[in-house]
Amino acid sequence: MTAPDPRMRWWGWGVDRDATTLSPAAEAVLREELDWSPRSAPHVGLDEVALPPAALGGDLAAKVEEIVGADHVRTDRLARVAHALGKSTPDLIRARAGDGSSAPDAVVYPGSGGEVFAVLDACAQAGVAVVPFGGGTSVVGGVEPIRDRFASAISLDLARLDTLIDVDRRALLATLSAGMTGPQAEAALAQHGLTLGHYPQSYEYATIGGYVATRSAGQNSTGYGRIDDLVRGLRLAAPGGDLAVHPFPGTAAGPSLRELVVGSEGTLGVITEATFRVRPRPDTERYEAWSFPSFEAGAEALRALEQAGAAPTLARLSDADETRMGFVLALSDRSRRVAGTYLGIRGQRRPCLAIVGYTGGAAGVRLRSLRAAGTLRANEAVYLGAKPGDKWQHTRFAGPYLRDTLLDRGVFVETLETATAWSNITLLREAVVSALRQALAARGTPAVVLCHISHLYPTGASLYFTFFARQEQGAELAQWYAAKSAASDAIVAGGGTITHHHAVGRDHAPWLAKEIGSLGVDALRALKERLDPAGVMNPGKLIDPAPLPGAPA
Amino acid sequence: MTAPDPRMRWWGWGVDRDATTLSPAAEAVLREELDWSPRSAPHVGLDEVALPPAALGGDLAAKVEEIVGADHVRTDRLARVAHALGKSTPDLIRARAGDGSSAPDAVVYPGSGGEVFAVLDACAQAGVAVVPFGGGTSVVGGVEPIRDRFASAISLDLARLDTLIDVDRRALLATLSAGMTGPQAEAALAQHGLTLGHYPQSYEYATIGGYVATRSAGQNSTGYGRIDDLVRGLRLAAPGGDLAVHPFPGTAAGPSLRELVVGSEGTLGVITEATFRVRPRPDTERYEAWSFPSFEAGAEALRALEQAGAAPTLARLSDADETRMGFVLALSDRSRRVAGTYLGIRGQRRPCLAIVGYTGGAAGVRLRSLRAAGTLRANEAVYLGAKPGDKWQHTRFAGPYLRDTLLDRGVFVETLETATAWSNITLLREAVVSALRQALAARGTPAVVLCHISHLYPTGASLYFTFFARQEQGAELAQWYAAKSAASDAIVAGGGTITHHHAVGRDHAPWLAKEIGSLGVDALRALKERLDPAGVMNPGKLIDPAPLPGAPA
Repeated sequence: MTAPDPRMRWWGWGVDRDATTLSPAAEAVLREELDWSPRSAPHVGLDEVALPPAALGGDLAAKVEEIVGADHVRTDRLARVAHALGKSTPDLIRARAGDGSSAPDAVVYPGSGGEVFAVLDACAQAGVAVVPFGGGTSVVGGVEPIRDRFASAISLDLARLDTLIDVDRRALLATLSAGMTGPQAEAALAQHGLTLGHYPQSYEYATIGGYVATRSAGQNSTGYGRIDDLVRGLRLAAPGGDLAVHPFPGTAAGPSLRELVVGSEGTLGVITEATFRVRPRPDTERYEAWSFPSFEAGAEALRALEQAGAAPTLARLSDADETRMGFVLALSDRSRRVAGTYLGIRGQRRPCLAIVGYTGGAAGVRLRSLRAAGTLRANEAVYLGAKPGDKWQHTRFAGPYLRDTLLDRGVFVETLETATAWSNITLLREAVVSALRQALAARGTPAVVLCHISHLYPTGASLYFTFFARQEQGAELAQWYAAKSAASDAIVAGGGTITHHHAVGRDHAPWLAKEIGSLGVDALRALKERLDPAGVMNPGKLIDPAPLPGAPA
Repeated sequence: MTAPDPRMRWWGWGVDRDATTLSPAAEAVLREELDWSPRSAPHVGLDEVALPPAALGGDLAAKVEEIVGADHVRTDRLARVAHALGKSTPDLIRARAGDGSSAPDAVVYPGSGGEVFAVLDACAQAGVAVVPFGGGTSVVGGVEPIRDRFASAISLDLARLDTLIDVDRRALLATLSAGMTGPQAEAALAQHGLTLGHYPQSYEYATIGGYVATRSAGQNSTGYGRIDDLVRGLRLAAPGGDLAVHPFPGTAAGPSLRELVVGSEGTLGVITEATFRVRPRPDTERYEAWSFPSFEAGAEALRALEQAGAAPTLARLSDADETRMGFVLALSDRSRRVAGTYLGIRGQRRPCLAIVGYTGGAAGVRLRSLRAAGTLRANEAVYLGAKPGDKWQHTRFAGPYLRDTLLDRGVFVETLETATAWSNITLLREAVVSALRQALAARGTPAVVLCHISHLYPTGASLYFTFFARQEQGAELAQWYAAKSAASDAIVAGGGTITHHHAVGRDHAPWLAKEIGSLGVDALRALKERLDPAGVMNPGKLIDPAPLPGAPA
């Protein structure tokens, strides 16, 4: 196997085949609410990307080729541009405008954990930054090769680490190579009748190593648990050495080294493999839609279910604006009118849609759905049938494609997320919605802000925000920064975590110290200094903030 | 409030009122199997304990008194001796023999988190070791003031930090001061209709802070989760500063600082308060006894229940020897014959007893018990009724008292524990039993070794070993070391963790590096150097092994 081509479009999400279009109804709503007229805002061509010359020193280039084989080092334009940025909104704004300034000097494809370690060692000695690259799906600037104090950087693409290493059927443990994508991992586990059950929106491209490195949560995490709950053991190749965490079922042997590596985002080393709790593949999936008269009523219902140990595998609750926009995107004018009339009669003038899903054996799914229905109805929910749930299920990974479509037409769109205690969920939602609306209105670009609850925990839930505005031509990054920093400030002030599942990367790094305190940052820095003494691992991320795109100078 | 008296007997567990006796039947079995004759082996009197003079420098003594008040510093014999050692078997052997060499120079009782921080700061500046002391229940040498390179040491007793700080009824979160004991915490939570549900065998004396610092698991942890699962937020006062971890329900904001503090065993700083997931108090508790024809059959049944998400709140499975000894301890001769005959007819010549327990609402308990019964019966279990289960429940905290009774009569007894994958559970049990038998037989003191599974996880379970031998008069510590090191070597070689819930302390520290590797130890050391630059926090524990009692020189 030679070095593979990039999996995704360098200027956007996924592949052309899966691109979406904007329906006329959705376009009409955006025109009206964003004070926007469609325009063509295409990305530049690959040849137009401004790319600095590859500047990897001859010695290191030769050494790396010796380690991984000359076939597994790429320095061509496509590979470099595709590894210059991830898939955050500012990343896409920059890529589409032809900003290749961060492109790595080389893209290196190691074929084993040993090769990873040898490459890290060579780069640490040469003083060259290393950016681990899995699916490249980061939406927080996590994979951009920021040089910091280094003259050169490589992107370490783990695509060749793609094997199922071990399955322990009795213990329900599986060890997977870090470079496997979600579908590769599920296909390999399916051969054994097993599933990891982890479905982030980036599932089609994200990798096992990326899941662990970013402390990922998936759409089914209410039932299956976050990746933090699923990962039991792992191996980290760090410039300072090799760390192996055994997948004991439980241990009291000191602080958790596993929990230091989980969420380390490539700043300590490279996760080369991980051992997960897996489950038998479910026979049945059932998705249902319910409507609540208010976000508060819906949140109370979900809290009641979760705290009674009766939560669905998947639970999402949209606020009234997201529900309205979802109806526009998903329903015909006629269906929308029918739904509105029906819910109006039931006293729901600003309905809030919930999608709940159950997976497992058929009898268990039926029982859980029945049991939950009682609680949902007791909290004023109206059943809308399986159809909207199935529709959600079929488009569950489609969100990022719509962003490309909107950017093509001059609409700014971004998402961000947090989590907080049940007692604070309504207040925090309002604070963040209001901060986003104000920040964007102040720029003369009124926003539509949507929110949903996407993951339930006994003590609280996550909040996921999507917002749209007319894109400010020529000030796209400043517009992004204004909105992002307003929301992040509101989250920190309002008692939320700066990120529930997108990770810290570059975009959240300025707020991390506010969340974990200066001693927390220092503790992580001390750890990094031991595992990565030369500081070459993924500079400018996590505890090492680089200036944000669009920030005032 | 002035400085309180020690809660437990300085030479043993608990208080005189709760002491146990050895039944004639149990004595007969021990006589026969241990080649032992009862002898009187009393502990020395308090006045006979060899106590070095209190050597706290005058400056520091005055400073500490200024911080906490003169009433809250004790240097009397009882306080010093009661804080010289914990409750490990070598600790008790030493205490009973009058070894007070490790006694702290003073016992300091801070009244607030601020006072804790001020005391740590003063000690770090003066170069005086600090040993955090909660219930003093450590069974791994975790609270002995080892001086290391320091001339003096204080024991920091947190008994005055005993308040319920906050309850969030909607989020089911409660913040508790570190010094509350298990019963104090449950009593305070009961006022709100809530429970933490954490019941280690040390429950009556162990503290909230100790739970977290030692990564504790309780007898109901199969259902309620380990303390790792229950603790959501915390505050750590460290010489290097203050660390606050917010109790977010879920977060992707980098490596988990919470998981660095959990299990840090006082080596980084002092946990002053912690926020826990709590639950409504259960209405109903139901305990049942079942018998299996073999340990393997029982383990398979428990695995099936756990992996189907149908596990009891509490599940214990004794091996054949522990079952036999349990019958001797708990049943009359006649009942034992009846039980033996009945189980023999059912084909169980070497029965293995399981206790399962369910807590919750009455209907749920009934349903779960019924559902589990099917799986238990399908795995050859015979139902023995509720009585043995209730009996277990009534004596669930009694184990440590029996140890004192046995030591009084010249019987050596120790417990240790591990955890491993389901696929390895039988092999590891056999390896550890065999290592203990051989090590003690080689010393001419044949052993009885008992084992049970005590906590279930989807991927594996814990194994808990209890062993007895005739105590070697004059070589008690060497005998302990021989057994302990043989078992620990067998655990590490056999794929288990060096500790499932007793923590590392002093006794497991020599094996920690084998479990987490040298880079793992270095990472924890880097962290400690940042949080505790002077190295005064609990020297000789966790990553900083001191020679073990009884080890060959």
